[in-house]
Amino acid sequence: MRILVVNPNTTASMTDKACIAAQRVASADTEIVAVTSQHGPVSIEGYYDEAMAVPGMLQAIQSEKDFDAVVIACFDDTGLDAARCITNKPVIGIGEAGYKVASMLSNKFSVVTTLARSVPALEHNLMKYGMERQCVRVRSSEIPVLELEHDGDTAAKKIGLEIEKALAEDRAEAIVLGCAGMVDLADKLSEQFSIPVLDGVTCAVSLCESLVRLKMSTTRQGGYAPPPEEKIKDLTQIYCS
Amino acid sequence: MRILVVNPNTTASMTDKACIAAQRVASADTEIVAVTSQHGPVSIEGYYDEAMAVPGMLQAIQSEKDFDAVVIACFDDTGLDAARCITNKPVIGIGEAGYKVASMLSNKFSVVTTLARSVPALEHNLMKYGMERQCVRVRSSEIPVLELEHDGDTAAKKIGLEIEKALAEDRAEAIVLGCAGMVDLADKLSEQFSIPVLDGVTCAVSLCESLVRLKMSTTRQGGYAPPPEEKIKDLTQIYCS
Amino acid sequence: MRILVVNPNTTASMTDKACIAAQRVASADTEIVAVTSQHGPVSIEGYYDEAMAVPGMLQAIQSEKDFDAVVIACFDDTGLDAARCITNKPVIGIGEAGYKVASMLSNKFSVVTTLARSVPALEHNLMKYGMERQCVRVRSSEIPVLELEHDGDTAAKKIGLEIEKALAEDRAEAIVLGCAGMVDLADKLSEQFSIPVLDGVTCAVSLCESLVRLKMSTTRQGGYAPPPEEKIKDLTQIYCS
Amino acid sequence: MRILVVNPNTTASMTDKACIAAQRVASADTEIVAVTSQHGPVSIEGYYDEAMAVPGMLQAIQSEKDFDAVVIACFDDTGLDAARCITNKPVIGIGEAGYKVASMLSNKFSVVTTLARSVPALEHNLMKYGMERQCVRVRSSEIPVLELEHDGDTAAKKIGLEIEKALAEDRAEAIVLGCAGMVDLADKLSEQFSIPVLDGVTCAVSLCESLVRLKMSTTRQGGYAPPPEEKIKDLTQIYCS
Amino acid sequence: MRILVVNPNTTASMTDKACIAAQRVASADTEIVAVTSQHGPVSIEGYYDEAMAVPGMLQAIQSEKDFDAVVIACFDDTGLDAARCITNKPVIGIGEAGYKVASMLSNKFSVVTTLARSVPALEHNLMKYGMERQCVRVRSSEIPVLELEHDGDTAAKKIGLEIEKALAEDRAEAIVLGCAGMVDLADKLSEQFSIPVLDGVTCAVSLCESLVRLKMSTTRQGGYAPPPEEKIKDLTQIYCS
Amino acid sequence: MRILVVNPNTTASMTDKACIAAQRVASADTEIVAVTSQHGPVSIEGYYDEAMAVPGMLQAIQSEKDFDAVVIACFDDTGLDAARCITNKPVIGIGEAGYKVASMLSNKFSVVTTLARSVPALEHNLMKYGMERQCVRVRSSEIPVLELEHDGDTAAKKIGLEIEKALAEDRAEAIVLGCAGMVDLADKLSEQFSIPVLDGVTCAVSLCESLVRLKMSTTRQGGYAPPPEEKIKDLTQIYCS
Repeated sequence: MRILVVNPNTTASMTDKACIAAQRVASADTEIVAVTSQHGPVSIEGYYDEAMAVPGMLQAIQSEKDFDAVVIACFDDTGLDAARCITNKPVIGIGEAGYKVASMLSNKFSVVTTLARSVPALEHNLMKYGMERQCVRVRSSEIPVLELEHDGDTAAKKIGLEIEKALAEDRAEAIVLGCAGMVDLADKLSEQFSIPVLDGVTCAVSLCESLVRLKMSTTRQGGYAPPPEEKIKDLTQIYCS
Repeated sequence: MRILVVNPNTTASMTDKACIAAQRVASADTEIVAVTSQHGPVSIEGYYDEAMAVPGMLQAIQSEKDFDAVVIACFDDTGLDAARCITNKPVIGIGEAGYKVASMLSNKFSVVTTLARSVPALEHNLMKYGMERQCVRVRSSEIPVLELEHDGDTAAKKIGLEIEKALAEDRAEAIVLGCAGMVDLADKLSEQFSIPVLDGVTCAVSLCESLVRLKMSTTRQGGYAPPPEEKIKDLTQIYCS
Repeated sequence: MRILVVNPNTTASMTDKACIAAQRVASADTEIVAVTSQHGPVSIEGYYDEAMAVPGMLQAIQSEKDFDAVVIACFDDTGLDAARCITNKPVIGIGEAGYKVASMLSNKFSVVTTLARSVPALEHNLMKYGMERQCVRVRSSEIPVLELEHDGDTAAKKIGLEIEKALAEDRAEAIVLGCAGMVDLADKLSEQFSIPVLDGVTCAVSLCESLVRLKMSTTRQGGYAPPPEEKIKDLTQIYCS
Repeated sequence: MRILVVNPNTTASMTDKACIAAQRVASADTEIVAVTSQHGPVSIEGYYDEAMAVPGMLQAIQSEKDFDAVVIACFDDTGLDAARCITNKPVIGIGEAGYKVASMLSNKFSVVTTLARSVPALEHNLMKYGMERQCVRVRSSEIPVLELEHDGDTAAKKIGLEIEKALAEDRAEAIVLGCAGMVDLADKLSEQFSIPVLDGVTCAVSLCESLVRLKMSTTRQGGYAPPPEEKIKDLTQIYCS
Repeated sequence: MRILVVNPNTTASMTDKACIAAQRVASADTEIVAVTSQHGPVSIEGYYDEAMAVPGMLQAIQSEKDFDAVVIACFDDTGLDAARCITNKPVIGIGEAGYKVASMLSNKFSVVTTLARSVPALEHNLMKYGMERQCVRVRSSEIPVLELEHDGDTAAKKIGLEIEKALAEDRAEAIVLGCAGMVDLADKLSEQFSIPVLDGVTCAVSLCESLVRLKMSTTRQGGYAPPPEEKIKDLTQIYCS
Repeated sequence: MRILVVNPNTTASMTDKACIAAQRVASADTEIVAVTSQHGPVSIEGYYDEAMAVPGMLQAIQSEKDFDAVVIACFDDTGLDAARCITNKPVIGIGEAGYKVASMLSNKFSVVTTLARSVPALEHNLMKYGMERQCVRVRSSEIPVLELEHDGDTAAKKIGLEIEKALAEDRAEAIVLGCAGMVDLADKLSEQFSIPVLDGVTCAVSLCESLVRLKMSTTRQGGYAPPPEEKIKDLTQIYCS
């Protein structure tokens, strides 16, 4: 099967990192097609970036024709609902994936993300997914997204400090790392703290494989009903030409 | 004061209707500046339209320099959080406004909107605003948005049928009309059913006046912290040139 | 228009303070009619005071005939539901007003009120209004209501300490001051902490102006249905003669 | 022990009925002291009546000196929180008692009360007590409170119809009768429908006996801290002389 | 009346302690029949013990024929729902009892239990009972259950430290002790901290007396419908012979 | 990898059906090891059966040594939390799996299960998993579990009727079949109603594959901490020899 991993920001090095991680967990017969959004913000830190990233991300999905499932590789699940309207193939956000996997391994977990400004958007998602009780707290490590690309050690240290607090104060039994850029830190931190430390990219790839094997498709009734084709054509022209 | 009423879809006749309604409730010293988004969907019916409308709407706000508050004239409060990041002037969505006014006049209310496909997005908003208990049910009248522009009588009839059900089954004490295009029906329906029937456009304009008189501005801390200026400049260029 | 600002406690100096604040934000054509309850507690600190204040407050409303809206100037929204039964004019409590304005300016806010004994009543209100998630915490500064009248400086200092904690621990993006007696501190604290610090009196006056301009009245169906006139007459005689 | 059963409305025949029911379930060594409020509404139907009943009810409690626990014999638990501030003896409302007993006998229950106007106040209580999930629905039989005194047969029939609906539509496993005036119908309806049908008066008396045997008293910390004695003296003079 | 107090673990000394406490609060005409489960874990600390304790506990109930109500004397309310299916006599868990009594004496309470591993199971119960808001926090004192049997002084000290934190951090107005083995500490701690400190065993016995006096039985409709007799016979044979 | 599919009831034909379904979706390199509990109820319909099934089911898990993940093949997720304590391999219940997959394909779904008596247990699970909002309603088709084995056509018809109601009344966008015995009906019903109709067995197997590929294990901290080995040995002897 072919799984499309879309990076909704335009920083190709983050796409590469996500791709490597995705390939690591993918089955032998799964091809990872990693694409970088062609127009939008270089990083997604808060509501504005998130909103401005969606048309570019939807275009990236639409310009790929041949895939079996889509992973949205940004932890605030940028444009997830809109993407589910334009394809009946399963679409999973990496935030959603991280929360759902954590909820099958622990009673309670905490999230460690990048900046405080991103926290309210994540909290809205948790509420939407019904995860507001199992997720005790969304913690910010105050590492900007792009710094994760350049200074992994400092990042690991800051994130480690927040994990310590999550264990002591939140009684978290697992940790979800709250940024696609942290994908390479999960294993090390998991070992260091002897609890599951999850990264959303790998979780989402693997859940996509599940949905494809189950031959599942996104419902076409209600909120995810496809928009009229003409509308899609018009809008694609406006934003993506 | 100057209140910017942004129609996030590109149908100018809806902007005109909203403008007239806005002027009707505005104070004598309030100027209504109604603008139509220059690129995006002709109507907003569900998640995809909503997402594709945001960059055009944000650009419409950014291209106006001189205003004291912003009304987002689409009932799913398209891009509300993003808009609050790019200006510290108060920004109110007409869905939010309708719910909050209804909550000050009744114990419980129901919403009557256009299509079933729009319902889940509204339900997510209600949860985000903490209105999921006071709003008993979001009902759809199965009138497409643009039909409201052409056949007001049929629309009024269909909406009336849903209001009857809301009174009998939901024990609603007030009704919020769930589309900017229904703005001209509120008074008539209110009289017909002897309960408050609210339209979001007028509610939002009036709440904006309040916030301006209170000299309030949107917080700059946390989730609504302004993005770096450079990012805004870059993104504006991408989408809006 | 004429807005009735009712102080449900019997301390006239608090009424005066509320009146001055109300006039400051009122429109030129709005007349503020501030009245002090004629019998009841000198301050409202907890459930007992609250309950004993209501008949006097309702009488104060009933003895005024000519008004367009009512503000209940006590932060626990004393008798709000009962007041909505005896007049179809909009009635807004200052707690309710503070919360609702804060919810349009921030993702999350905290309340700083007077005494710990008042906290549970406020928490019940927040739950009733659906604000229990957007309001992170109700903090008490341990300043008795009447001390606010005599020692504003100490009060401002104690409240400032709680705001600091709200920023650090609650990640509050705005603050609502939890007592009518704090009305004169809002602007200074807002400037000091660079976030919106709201006082309920001014918020309520301005929201009342909105509702009046919108020609809104409280629903007469369901929980706010007016009691039989005879009952009102009888009860008014019992308590208020 | 002596249990004070306070009827917060002024209709003595309802007090008598409650007293008889109370005595039926009371232990041999329990004395029921039933008192009727001396000033306030003749029946409590909605927010206004409820508010106007409280000072009279509190006075009724204060004028009795020798009791071990208090039952507030109105289904909307009129003034319950205020009463807990003026005595450290256990105080239980009959609504609260009915809900809590039902929650120990069934997974889910529904309430059948008198008028639609009383429903929102009951729903607020259910939320406050955390019973909003176990109580599926508050149903109104549209029988005015005082009609229960005069036409028991019609009342039983109307209530029976609502119980049928509760079984079919709400999947209720038990029913709580939502008015002190229905106390004599519980056993018959319970037999007729083969499920527990509870009346709050008897439940509250029995729970009071429990609390007294457990030597429990209401907390004096936080929201139920006693008001200063002087305040109580002053206020008692105002309303109750 | 005869109240069956079942200790679902197999440690007889805990049964004895519970029995003494039960007798202390029982009415003169109530006989306490304390039984120890004949097979299952020696203590219940977490999900596994809980699950393994249930068949033994149900057998202990089934082998007693003559009783009027059942108390399940383990704080995680082991097998409560299953027990309600096999007898129509009232069945109350000591956790449930502690929470419900606390909720009639205070606005908010905290729980102090034994080990951290037991906390999630208690939190699930609180959610099921609708007590997740009134119970601010479940605190663990890190005392293993059986240590309570041997070193009461150390236990009292550790529990006292958690109560101090509950007062300061949770603004708890009452405390519920979260283990049957703490039954003898409640009075002393209550006096020491001047707030209600509840133990579930005595609360449950007293609530059972109430339900019996009210002639209440568990509903036979819905989730507590009795299983077919044959099934019960078969299963009893499997586990309990 | 080897996935253990445990049928917690003792009806081998249901195990066979689950095994066939599991194999259908499993990857080529996954071996399905289906085991039937050796002692416990023949079907699980409600709380009592559920409780009596757990020791047998845990023994079935413990007697298999070589597996990578466990599926609990009963829709009420019998003993899920206990099972997570005795192995660090991922354990997933088929109810949990069905809900979580449905939540990634639709905004809202409904459940169609067997008997009304099973509904409350499922509703408690939904609350525990945070799925109480996305799952609109748990519907019972009044087909006993074992009838599913013998009369598939009648079952399909009754279930179809409930799906129709779920679409019309609940606005469900997907359906989760609420019994392991319905596993062979999902595809047909999905086609018939043009929406995703999910069966939990296949969902759980596929999610297990995901967790294994992700090299995930259940947390050993907090509520899922392993019990002392001695305790496990003792209890295994008691119930399972």
